[in-house]
Amino acid sequence: MSSSEIMLNLNQKAINLLQEDADKIEKLIEVQMDTLTNRRCPLYEEVLDTQMYGLSREIDFAVRAGLLTETIGKEIMSRLERNLAKLYEALSVNEGNE
Amino acid sequence: MSSSEIMLNLNQKAINLLQEDADKIEKLIEVQMDTLTNRRCPLYEEVLDTQMYGLSREIDFAVRAGLLTETIGKEIMSRLERNLAKLYEALSVNEGNE
Repeated sequence: MSSSEIMLNLNQKAINLLQEDADKIEKLIEVQMDTLTNRRCPLYEEVLDTQMYGLSREIDFAVRAGLLTETIGKEIMSRLERNLAKLYEALSVNEGNE
Repeated sequence: MSSSEIMLNLNQKAINLLQEDADKIEKLIEVQMDTLTNRRCPLYEEVLDTQMYGLSREIDFAVRAGLLTETIGKEIMSRLERNLAKLYEALSVNEGNE
């Protein structure tokens, strides 16, 4: 393999790993969305926040190690943040209806 | 550069980055050690815990990306954990003396 092929492989691997972790958080958000009949669960929100922080540190490391552009890293985080905002919005609407 | 040189460079870079982050936590521990006249500060411990968690996620990612052996990753964490344990021990002795 040429050196540029090696870097491409590594970069792709890094993106796949980060996307896997992002998907796990996405699942956590969906599960909470599906159980909107429940009230807000502070413990669940704490878990989501912790997972988001962990992922942001992984992404930051990958960018510094040159495996990822900052733009791709930000895209992964922004997508999750948008979904998380939707969840919190849905939860507060739901609370208002009770 | 040959492909093995590229990997060596990347691996070294990854270790340096993680060590930098570990050093930052080490500094936080030292600062707290130097101000042992203070009582335990729960907020400070919270910050240390969060930083430790962030670093563990970076290391986990680096290992999965093949940039680091699990052994080296564990060594970085263990060293910090030992120092953190010393800090907590010193803090509790200090509290006992008051």
